[in-house]
Amino acid sequence: MSNDQELAGAIDIGGTKVAVGLVGKDGNAVSRRSIPTRDLADGNIAVAAIESSLKDCIRETGVTPVGIGISCTGPVDPISGEIGKVANLPGWQGCRIVEEIANRIGIQTAMENDADSAALAEATWGSGRGVERFLYITLSTGIGGGFLIGGSVYRGVGGSHPEMGHHTMDPSGPDCYCGAKGCWESLASGNALRDWFLENDLERRFSLETLDARIIFDLYRSGDPFAEKAVKRLTFYVALGLANLTTILVPDVIALGGGLIRGSDLFLDRAVQMFRARCGEVPVEKALVRTAVLEENLDLAGAAAVWFRSPKQRIDA
Amino acid sequence: MSNDQELAGAIDIGGTKVAVGLVGKDGNAVSRRSIPTRDLADGNIAVAAIESSLKDCIRETGVTPVGIGISCTGPVDPISGEIGKVANLPGWQGCRIVEEIANRIGIQTAMENDADSAALAEATWGSGRGVERFLYITLSTGIGGGFLIGGSVYRGVGGSHPEMGHHTMDPSGPDCYCGAKGCWESLASGNALRDWFLENDLERRFSLETLDARIIFDLYRSGDPFAEKAVKRLTFYVALGLANLTTILVPDVIALGGGLIRGSDLFLDRAVQMFRARCGEVPVEKALVRTAVLEENLDLAGAAAVWFRSPKQRIDA
Repeated sequence: MSNDQELAGAIDIGGTKVAVGLVGKDGNAVSRRSIPTRDLADGNIAVAAIESSLKDCIRETGVTPVGIGISCTGPVDPISGEIGKVANLPGWQGCRIVEEIANRIGIQTAMENDADSAALAEATWGSGRGVERFLYITLSTGIGGGFLIGGSVYRGVGGSHPEMGHHTMDPSGPDCYCGAKGCWESLASGNALRDWFLENDLERRFSLETLDARIIFDLYRSGDPFAEKAVKRLTFYVALGLANLTTILVPDVIALGGGLIRGSDLFLDRAVQMFRARCGEVPVEKALVRTAVLEENLDLAGAAAVWFRSPKQRIDA
Repeated sequence: MSNDQELAGAIDIGGTKVAVGLVGKDGNAVSRRSIPTRDLADGNIAVAAIESSLKDCIRETGVTPVGIGISCTGPVDPISGEIGKVANLPGWQGCRIVEEIANRIGIQTAMENDADSAALAEATWGSGRGVERFLYITLSTGIGGGFLIGGSVYRGVGGSHPEMGHHTMDPSGPDCYCGAKGCWESLASGNALRDWFLENDLERRFSLETLDARIIFDLYRSGDPFAEKAVKRLTFYVALGLANLTTILVPDVIALGGGLIRGSDLFLDRAVQMFRARCGEVPVEKALVRTAVLEENLDLAGAAAVWFRSPKQRIDA
């Protein structure tokens, strides 16, 4: 490894693990560590463990990163660099992680919500390169989105992150923790698919512990008619969300990532067809739907893209 | 009238009338003509009549406008200056009205969709002054919206105008001409209010010809319980639309204009309360809801604002 390669420090904070590493300008990680999130009970413990892992990576490669990007699940404040009220990280709330990391490592640092980070990574190395209005949607256990205009993160009032997954599309739908009934996440996420299956499968073949979206997709592929029904319902709501975001934002490209994309052969073509039929008032034929390309490396690539692409929010060391 | 006052030529093309005039930098019209739209069967007739009216205004005031703004109902192309497929203006489709007017009057001209024009006018003289992310919504016979970022019109792919009023919020709702079922316009517009009343009023007291939103508001004010029910249904869907657009765009201010605002004392406070309860994932307390302030003069003010505020789309004479 040459010392003169330009690397970004990358920290991806997820509900299950925190990935730490060094990432090149090609988006590939050259060094990587992983810490189980459950071992990091609060912000102080987390910052110390991340510092230690990142210093390991720096020693291993012999390269000092030019900057550090953090991608973090849940509501975070990219301007102040503070962790918000994140369901998976209860002890971290209020931690000024960007300032802490910048000071401890001595390198300027920036942070974004994980959906915005993923959007930045896809815009840098994947499905959103050169796209003027780029919407990245993650169809996962939940649904998140990041919207870029001219390569920069679109922010709402006070620098806030819009929550594409929580707009209401069917008020007869399930209650969501967001305060709405029948928002997109409550109808078209992996958890929504699983929950609907569990509640409506009269044979009661599964439980919360034994069922997930991947199993439902496999059942459908093996000919199970109830799994087919569940996936068709998912298809309809995926289509509605695409239609609504296209009607409101009219992006050039929507890229779909997240775990549900593993079943995209079962629903995506049909969802795109349905969504196009519902957008008669905007030039929907110009809005392309793609699948995200960085799935495997998205954690550290997303974090690195935050540093490479969001210079305005950097907090200096 | 002093000859050195800076005036914009203003042309507002609506389904009922075309207003033509000269507007000062304070947003007030100093000269005005009106032509019934039904007299303007195609683009050629329209352009000639508009030219004649605008020249009348110029003669009357003795002031040559510094530029001309056009506000037009329905889909128009602000980049090419061409009228699209507008339901109320069937003979006008394909008319390159901006170029025609610029050439005939000899003054540079620009055009926007009427919702974007109204947003620009409110941002210049009304409820959107100095607002970074400003969403203007017209609750009228239909529902339209214009979104400004930093004072400029947000455009979708190919310069297209987003159609805020046509996102789906209840797939069990009525069919809409847009191709969707249960879009916002089909549930919370003046026509939606009227149609629901007609279909569900068991006493069959009214017909399409004898009922409109204003009458329903008056019935509610006089204690009619069925009108109250209709307005409460409207309230719910107004709230859902505000919630969805706030979740996706997180604007600093949403301004509501259009004819339904005449009944805002009957539904707006409750709608705002309901909408705030449904936006748990974004800082909804920072997103202000206002009523538009330019209602009376919005036609010519909107057209003039197109010229004063959208320099990039001007077509030179």
